[in-house]
Amino acid sequence: MSFERKNILNMLGYVPGEQPKLDSVIKLNTNENPYPASPDVAAALAAIDVAELRRYPQALAEDFRATAANLHGVQDSNIIPTNGGDELLRLALTTFVEAEEIVAVTQPSYSLYPVLAEVQNCNLVEIPLEENWTMPEDFARNLNSLDAKMCILVNPHAPTGALLCSDYLSELATQFNGVLIIDEAYVDFVEPELKYDCVPLVSELENLLILRSLSKGYSLAGLRFGYGIASESLANPIMFKTRDSYNTDYIAQKLACTALESREYVEANWARIRLSRSTLASGLQQLGFSCLPSQTNFLLCEAPQNQDAEALYQALKSRHILVRYFNQPRLKNMLRISVGSEEENASLLSALSEILSA
Amino acid sequence: MSFERKNILNMLGYVPGEQPKLDSVIKLNTNENPYPASPDVAAALAAIDVAELRRYPQALAEDFRATAANLHGVQDSNIIPTNGGDELLRLALTTFVEAEEIVAVTQPSYSLYPVLAEVQNCNLVEIPLEENWTMPEDFARNLNSLDAKMCILVNPHAPTGALLCSDYLSELATQFNGVLIIDEAYVDFVEPELKYDCVPLVSELENLLILRSLSKGYSLAGLRFGYGIASESLANPIMFKTRDSYNTDYIAQKLACTALESREYVEANWARIRLSRSTLASGLQQLGFSCLPSQTNFLLCEAPQNQDAEALYQALKSRHILVRYFNQPRLKNMLRISVGSEEENASLLSALSEILSA
Repeated sequence: MSFERKNILNMLGYVPGEQPKLDSVIKLNTNENPYPASPDVAAALAAIDVAELRRYPQALAEDFRATAANLHGVQDSNIIPTNGGDELLRLALTTFVEAEEIVAVTQPSYSLYPVLAEVQNCNLVEIPLEENWTMPEDFARNLNSLDAKMCILVNPHAPTGALLCSDYLSELATQFNGVLIIDEAYVDFVEPELKYDCVPLVSELENLLILRSLSKGYSLAGLRFGYGIASESLANPIMFKTRDSYNTDYIAQKLACTALESREYVEANWARIRLSRSTLASGLQQLGFSCLPSQTNFLLCEAPQNQDAEALYQALKSRHILVRYFNQPRLKNMLRISVGSEEENASLLSALSEILSA
Repeated sequence: MSFERKNILNMLGYVPGEQPKLDSVIKLNTNENPYPASPDVAAALAAIDVAELRRYPQALAEDFRATAANLHGVQDSNIIPTNGGDELLRLALTTFVEAEEIVAVTQPSYSLYPVLAEVQNCNLVEIPLEENWTMPEDFARNLNSLDAKMCILVNPHAPTGALLCSDYLSELATQFNGVLIIDEAYVDFVEPELKYDCVPLVSELENLLILRSLSKGYSLAGLRFGYGIASESLANPIMFKTRDSYNTDYIAQKLACTALESREYVEANWARIRLSRSTLASGLQQLGFSCLPSQTNFLLCEAPQNQDAEALYQALKSRHILVRYFNQPRLKNMLRISVGSEEENASLLSALSEILSA
């Protein structure tokens, strides 16, 4: 017997990337940061006394809101702390989109979006990227003619790694009648020279919600902490109505504050990963892969001529190296490879070299 | 401009109990455990290396599921780990109740239930307890004639502290056509002699979902960890479809496992609190309060004759002692007082004695 709502009964769930039990696996499949969080975060963790967990945490995570607001030059009331960025996405749908209303995403994109839309029983419209993975023409006009209530874009894009500039997004949000979510899970790896920054737009654009995550840039995927940056008209209903009343825990709040404050450490970490990204891309290209230019901590690469991406994925897996293979029409001959440590990247390249010459 | 769904726009949010900034406050208002979690939990916390947080946690919290299943004598697949018990309640509504369908609770009850029903846009029916706070007659028949899809009961009851026996709940679940949630947030404080245990019912009753929390019994309110125990037909859709894909974090999973395994420590803690509960009830009765018999870690007490409960609440607050006052018709002359440490309870009694004799 089933008690499920009809839309839940009919849906499939989200399938997260593989999390192997073996520590010896080289794990380049879920875009985790290869280096640990800052020593200050380690110290903050070590300083927590279990007796502090006796009491409920700050329901509104006030300290974290103040820390993040200070970092971004916004008000505390513009910050929405969440149990991972995924929770923010779910809350945005819960708060702003009725069942049967339309949510638009691009195709391809983060595979969680369709699952969240199904849970809320929304109608998902997937708008294909152009042949060269750029945004479709007349995107805002399309969204409005669909009467989309929400559009979720991941920027820099997953899985291509491409970055849309702030001006494009500003214009899109201005033209679009619904709520625009910019999922910036990978924003920390963007070249600083590009001066990409959508946060100042939040003070002008009431319909813009920016998602940030501590999973990748801050090496804290295990902690589950993300946050939104948005106008009060988007932030308040989430903070005071739809959010679980204590959605982030005491330890996560403390560590997240410290992580955001470790500027020098994280900026050096991001620079190091950008350098590795460039070295890894060169290495892959020398092996015959063609990699898309990436502003993230992963590379989307087409397999060399006459090679099958899925076979390469399997051959790597048998050597305890995990990368991501997507069984989707436009991604069928590609691999998404997270930028690992210098050693991990070198091991990957030498394994691929062996596999290709076998 | 508002982008909110109509039901969200029209609702008020949940108001959590006060969380004072001052450490010197005696806090008997939100039913936190007065003693810290076990030394083993402290050791598990100290053993965590920040580098372990680099990777995503177990998406399904497999280790916790195995630990809890072992404790309760059920299968791993019957356990639903959640980010606090509140998340389980929200997920149950999301998974099993359509908008406009009916969710039933008793009146009074935990004040979060109506808020969660509003978020999901369900119709809430509040069925008043009898004059002496017992369950209304013909409850199951009433639920079925309302066509309720879900009923949420807190047992032992908040705010009265009364316990319904397993046989009553077994019969109710058998008769009721919808999903019955038994919120056992306070179950750890029930007298062991009563042999209350609804867990074995889960193997027979497909519509029964039991909620457990580590907030009170395990002194971990700050950690946000709860879990459900239910048949696979209720557990699977939550685990594999509606739950955020990484809803519990690495640290919380580790500490929750250790907490459940610290049996000797927690059982001694619960016995100590039951003893304090009895001493506190006697003290309050000597001051003229009449306390309802409680199987929880709080007491619901009617103010002495010619005394006003709200004035007592305020007088205590001005002395830095927080208790809970509910501004609701049937609770207007009552206070809900958490059982604190022996010292805290003694301070409360002496403050009340002074206030009453002033």
